[in-house]
Amino acid sequence: MKKVRAGIVGGAGYTGGELLRWLLRHPSLEVTLVTSESQAGEPYAAAHPGLPGYEGRRFQAYDPERLARECDFVFLAKPQPNSFAQVRALFGRVRLIDLSGDFRLGSPEKFERWYHEKHGAPEFLKEAVYGLPEFLAPELRAARLVANPGCYATGVLLALLPLLKAGLVEPEALVSAVSGFSGAGRTPSSTTTAYSVVDNLRPYKVVNHPHQGEILEVLSRLTGHPLDLEFIPQVAGFERGILEVIFCRFQPDLEPASTADVLEKAYRSAPFVRVHPAGRLPELKGVVNTNFCDLGWQPLKGGRLLLVAALDNLVKGAAGQAIQNLNLMAGLPETAGL
Amino acid sequence: MKKVRAGIVGGAGYTGGELLRWLLRHPSLEVTLVTSESQAGEPYAAAHPGLPGYEGRRFQAYDPERLARECDFVFLAKPQPNSFAQVRALFGRVRLIDLSGDFRLGSPEKFERWYHEKHGAPEFLKEAVYGLPEFLAPELRAARLVANPGCYATGVLLALLPLLKAGLVEPEALVSAVSGFSGAGRTPSSTTTAYSVVDNLRPYKVVNHPHQGEILEVLSRLTGHPLDLEFIPQVAGFERGILEVIFCRFQPDLEPASTADVLEKAYRSAPFVRVHPAGRLPELKGVVNTNFCDLGWQPLKGGRLLLVAALDNLVKGAAGQAIQNLNLMAGLPETAGL
Amino acid sequence: MKKVRAGIVGGAGYTGGELLRWLLRHPSLEVTLVTSESQAGEPYAAAHPGLPGYEGRRFQAYDPERLARECDFVFLAKPQPNSFAQVRALFGRVRLIDLSGDFRLGSPEKFERWYHEKHGAPEFLKEAVYGLPEFLAPELRAARLVANPGCYATGVLLALLPLLKAGLVEPEALVSAVSGFSGAGRTPSSTTTAYSVVDNLRPYKVVNHPHQGEILEVLSRLTGHPLDLEFIPQVAGFERGILEVIFCRFQPDLEPASTADVLEKAYRSAPFVRVHPAGRLPELKGVVNTNFCDLGWQPLKGGRLLLVAALDNLVKGAAGQAIQNLNLMAGLPETAGL
Amino acid sequence: MKKVRAGIVGGAGYTGGELLRWLLRHPSLEVTLVTSESQAGEPYAAAHPGLPGYEGRRFQAYDPERLARECDFVFLAKPQPNSFAQVRALFGRVRLIDLSGDFRLGSPEKFERWYHEKHGAPEFLKEAVYGLPEFLAPELRAARLVANPGCYATGVLLALLPLLKAGLVEPEALVSAVSGFSGAGRTPSSTTTAYSVVDNLRPYKVVNHPHQGEILEVLSRLTGHPLDLEFIPQVAGFERGILEVIFCRFQPDLEPASTADVLEKAYRSAPFVRVHPAGRLPELKGVVNTNFCDLGWQPLKGGRLLLVAALDNLVKGAAGQAIQNLNLMAGLPETAGL
Repeated sequence: MKKVRAGIVGGAGYTGGELLRWLLRHPSLEVTLVTSESQAGEPYAAAHPGLPGYEGRRFQAYDPERLARECDFVFLAKPQPNSFAQVRALFGRVRLIDLSGDFRLGSPEKFERWYHEKHGAPEFLKEAVYGLPEFLAPELRAARLVANPGCYATGVLLALLPLLKAGLVEPEALVSAVSGFSGAGRTPSSTTTAYSVVDNLRPYKVVNHPHQGEILEVLSRLTGHPLDLEFIPQVAGFERGILEVIFCRFQPDLEPASTADVLEKAYRSAPFVRVHPAGRLPELKGVVNTNFCDLGWQPLKGGRLLLVAALDNLVKGAAGQAIQNLNLMAGLPETAGL
Repeated sequence: MKKVRAGIVGGAGYTGGELLRWLLRHPSLEVTLVTSESQAGEPYAAAHPGLPGYEGRRFQAYDPERLARECDFVFLAKPQPNSFAQVRALFGRVRLIDLSGDFRLGSPEKFERWYHEKHGAPEFLKEAVYGLPEFLAPELRAARLVANPGCYATGVLLALLPLLKAGLVEPEALVSAVSGFSGAGRTPSSTTTAYSVVDNLRPYKVVNHPHQGEILEVLSRLTGHPLDLEFIPQVAGFERGILEVIFCRFQPDLEPASTADVLEKAYRSAPFVRVHPAGRLPELKGVVNTNFCDLGWQPLKGGRLLLVAALDNLVKGAAGQAIQNLNLMAGLPETAGL
Repeated sequence: MKKVRAGIVGGAGYTGGELLRWLLRHPSLEVTLVTSESQAGEPYAAAHPGLPGYEGRRFQAYDPERLARECDFVFLAKPQPNSFAQVRALFGRVRLIDLSGDFRLGSPEKFERWYHEKHGAPEFLKEAVYGLPEFLAPELRAARLVANPGCYATGVLLALLPLLKAGLVEPEALVSAVSGFSGAGRTPSSTTTAYSVVDNLRPYKVVNHPHQGEILEVLSRLTGHPLDLEFIPQVAGFERGILEVIFCRFQPDLEPASTADVLEKAYRSAPFVRVHPAGRLPELKGVVNTNFCDLGWQPLKGGRLLLVAALDNLVKGAAGQAIQNLNLMAGLPETAGL
Repeated sequence: MKKVRAGIVGGAGYTGGELLRWLLRHPSLEVTLVTSESQAGEPYAAAHPGLPGYEGRRFQAYDPERLARECDFVFLAKPQPNSFAQVRALFGRVRLIDLSGDFRLGSPEKFERWYHEKHGAPEFLKEAVYGLPEFLAPELRAARLVANPGCYATGVLLALLPLLKAGLVEPEALVSAVSGFSGAGRTPSSTTTAYSVVDNLRPYKVVNHPHQGEILEVLSRLTGHPLDLEFIPQVAGFERGILEVIFCRFQPDLEPASTADVLEKAYRSAPFVRVHPAGRLPELKGVVNTNFCDLGWQPLKGGRLLLVAALDNLVKGAAGQAIQNLNLMAGLPETAGL
C-alpha cells in the first residue's frame, strides 16, 4: 500500500522531535520533509540525540512549494510565535495539523484576549476543526485544517465533557494542574533553565493561561453552555506528564454512581481514554510515553466530585494526538503508530 | 550561658536527621542523647552521611531514665508507629515535642477515626499543645507536651486561619497539595522506592489523609466553627517541599483587597511566615531548606480566592517548627538556630 | 504467519515490565504466559501502571508444564535470586533466554567467585551461549539457552572487543561507569529507596561487581587473552541509562586514526551499535528508551585512548538485547520489534 | 566586635546567591554592598527566591568607588566573562577573592592556552594566591588577591597533593568526574536548559577543560613536578555536587596501607577534608550543602590506587571555600560561618 506522506514544519523543537519519534514507528506514514528555520541543513540527530531511524536525514529550510509537492499532510510544530503564514501558504494544498494555539479559539477577538496579539489569519478560523478525536471524529475525518488541542485542555476536556453533556455536574470547575517542564519548550530562557525547574514547583500564568480560554471555548461550543472555570497551572521538575486535579459539583439529586456509567459509555470505543474505577486515581507513571489519557474520579462530601486526569503532555497532549488526528483524516486505524 | 540540653528519640529517620542538621547550628542548644531502636550503637553518619559536626557520636538504645537525666527537652521523632510509650515514660520529667500525629487530635475517638487504631495514651491528650507558634505562642511557652503540626496541615492552617478568624472567607476550602517524597519517610516499602516516585506524580490517601482531620480539628478549635474541607494530597519525585493550592470563597460584600491587610497583620511579627503581594504566588525554590512558609493569594472570579502556601515539609513542616517550638518553650529567641 | 509464542518468568519486576513494553510492539511475537511469584493473579497493570495493551491480562503462578506447552521461547527475568530451577525444568522443552547472571560465567568456580554462592545447575553452563549478538550471532541462532549479558558488561564489551581483537589496544582498561537506579531493581531495600538515590551519586561494589567477572570472562573467551580490568560502578538518581568512561592504551606504534576503521568495520552491519566520529562523545539522551549502544572515542596524550559507551540499561542492557537475541534464535529480522 | 564588611560583585548568579546564603549565617561578617549588572535595582529575592535574611535589600550597579569605601573584602563572582577590570579598579583598596578562573594560572600564556583569550590584567598574576587553604594558609592570610579554586580542581588537588608530595604515587592520574548542572551557571543557553540536562549524563570539554590546566599548574607549583593528567568531565541532571573517580599508581615497593597515614596526616587539622577509611568511598549525599570535601581510597590490582573525591561544587568548590579563604585573610576562625 502506498504510504501517506507527512511533513513537519518546525522539526527541531520539543514537539517536532516527539512527532519524529512516533512517526518512525507508524506503519502507514512516510516522513518526506522536515523543516527547521534555526537548524536547516543540520542532521535531525543534532537536535534530537535520541532519535533513531533517520540516519543521514537533515532539516530543510521552510519551502511551501516543496511541502505542497512532497507531502499529503503537514504538521505545524514551530515552537513560536505563530503558524499564520504557513496556514496561508499551505491551506488547501496539503491537509494541515497545527500544534500551536493559533486556531483553537473561535474568533480573532478571543485569540487576542488570550494570546495578547492580533490574529494573523482570521479567515481560516472557520475552517479549523478542533482536534479532539473522542468528540469530533466525523468533522476531523474531513478536515483540511486541524487545531490540535493544548496539553492542559486535553485532560480537562476529556474529564468534563461527558459529565457536562450528560447534565451530571454543574458547569463549574476548579482545576489545579501540574505539568512537566517540556510544556515550556526547549528554547533557552529564564523559565526553561534547569536552575528554574529542577526540584521546584511553581504556579505560573494563573488566571490567564491561554488553555483556560481554550477549555472555555470548546466546552461552550460542545455543550452549548458556558463553564465557570478556574485554572491554576504549575510547572514541576520532571520532563513529561500532566496531572490535573478537578473539583466540580454534582447537579442536585443525582447519583454519584452514575459517573461511572457516563464516563464508561463516553469512552467505551475510545482507544486512548482509560476510565479508572471510582476511587482509583491515575498517576503520571501510567501515561508517560503513551498516548493514553487516564481518568479517575471520586465523590466527595456535600455533592462534590473529584476528577483526576493524567496524560503525557508531549504525546496525548501534542504529538500523539496529532497523529491520532492524522489517522482519522487519512482513513487509517485510529491507533496506527500509537 | 548554660546550654539547653536536647535529646532525640528516633534519630535515624528522615526527621531525626533533619533535627540534627539544624540543632548543630543552634547557638543555645546542646544535643545530649540521640536514640534509635534500629541503629543503636551505630554512628550518626551511618544513617545520615551528610551530617557534619557529630563525628564520633553514636545512636543509643532508648532508655527513658537516661533521657530524663540527660535532657531538658526531648524530640519524639520515631518514624512509626507511635509515641505513646515514650510520652507515658517521659511526661513531666522532660518537656516533650512529639513530631508524630499522636497528640494532634482532640479525642481518642478522633484519633481512631483518622489513624485507624486505638489511642494508647488518651490521658495526655488534654496536656498537648498544638505546636503552631504563630497562633499558640503563649500556650507553647508553658507546654510540657507539644504536638508538632503535620507538614500539610501547617501550610493550610497558616493560609486559612487569619482569613477565617477575620470572617473574610467562608468556612470552605478545596485543597490540592503536592509533597516531595521525604514526606513518606525513608523506611523501604513499595511507596518509598525510587521506582515509585521518580518522574511520577501520584494522588494518595484522598479523602482520608490524617492531616485532613488535623486541619479540621485545629481550625474548629481556633475559630470556633467547623470547616468544609476537601484535601487531595499528591506525592512527587523531588525530595523536599510542599506546595498547596487552596480554593476558597470570600464572604459576600467583602473587599478582596482586605486579604492583604488581614494576612499582613496576622504575620507582621511572625518571623517565618512571608506574605507575598497579591498575584505573586510562591514557589518551592523560595522555601526549600528554610523554616519559612510563604503565602500568596489572588482573587478569582465570582468571589473566589486562591491561596497558595509553600514550605519545606522537613523544616517548617517538621524539624524546623519543632525547634521553633522549643525556642518558645525554653525562652530563647524564636528564630534561634533557624 | 503464525506468531512466535513467548513467555516470561518473573514478569512483575523492572525487567519483566520492560520486556512486556517492547514485546507489545513486536510484530511477530505473541505473549502467551507471564508468571510472577509475588503477584500471581494480579493484573499486569498492578505492577506496571504504564503498560498498555495487556488490559485484562494477569500474572500466572509459575508452572513449568504450562510454560512448556504454551511457549516457544521463555525469558527468565526473575529479580532474584536464581534461575537454576527454571533452567532445569524447562531446558530442551522451550528455548530459554536468561536475563540473570547465572549462566554468564564459564564455570561453577567462577560463578562462586563473583556471586558468592554455589552454582545450582552447573551441567547447563556449557549449553549457554552468551547473548551478545554483535559477536556471537551464529551461535545464538542455534542456542537453546542464552545467557543475556549484564548491562555494564554490554557497553564495555562492545567498546573494547573490536579494538582488542584487532590488536589495537593493550589488554588493560580502567572503567568508571555510572548507572541509573533501575539497575538495582525495584524490590524495596535501603539501596532502592528514593532517599538513597535521588540527587546522589554513589560508588558501590567497587572491585567486586559481578559484571567485572563477566567482562573478564567474555573478553578472554573471545580474544584468547586475559584483560587487566578495573571497574568502578556508581549509581545515580536518574532511572535509566549507563555511561561508561573507559581508559585504555594503544599498542606501541599504532595509528590512533585506525580506531575509526576498526570500530566502523566491526559494527558496519550491526543495527544497534552506533560509532560516533572521533571526539564526539555519546550522551545518555541519545540512547535512553532505545536499543542502541553508542560508542565514542578520543585519543589522549601519551598513547592513551578514551572510549565512552552509552546505553539504556533496561533495553540494550537487558530487555531489548534479550529480544534481539530471540529474533536471531527465531530467524526473525534482528531489529524486529526494536 | 566590629564586623568585617564584605561585598559581592556579581550577586545575581548561582555563585552570588550561594555566597549570600552562607554569609547570612556568618557571625563576624556583614554584607554591605552587592552589585549586579543585569539586575541592579532589583531585590535580591528576584534573583534568589530562596534567600532569606535580606528582605528589602537590592542589587546595586557596579561602582568601584563605593565598593572601596564600603567594603573590607570583595568577592568577585561575575558569571562571565572576566574579572580583569574589577581587579584593576579594586586591587590594593580592598582585599579581593576572585571566584573566576582569571588568576589561577601562572602566566598570561597559560591563561590563553586554556581559556582561549588574552589575559586582561597580567601584572596582577604574581599577586594572586591560589585559594586552597589546606595547602596555602600562610600565604592566604596575607593575600590581597585570592584566586579561588575551580570546583573540579579542588577535589582532584585535595586527593592527589598529599600523595604526590609524599612520593607515594607516580605523577600520573586519570580522572572521570561528574558534576551537577549548577557548574554551568544559570545563564540561559542550550547547555543550561532543563531539556539538555535532566535525566542526562554528558561528557563535555574533554581534553580541554580549563580546570585541567589549573590542576596541572597547581600540582606542578606545589610538588615541583609535572603531572601526567587526563580529565574527563561530565554533567548530570542533579543540581549540586561533584564526584571524581581518580585512577593513579603507587610508586614501586610502596605499602598501599601508608595511604591512610599520608592522607590522615595531611588533613588532621583541616576542618573541611574528611578522609574515609580504606574501601569506604564517599557519596554526594555526604557533602551536598556542606563545605566538606570527602576523600576515599582503595588499592586496586597491579599497584594501582583508586581515589574518590566528593564535594559540593557550589560550596567547597566555590562560595564556601571563598568564605574559608576570607576567614583566613581576616584572622577569623577558619570554620566561621561554615
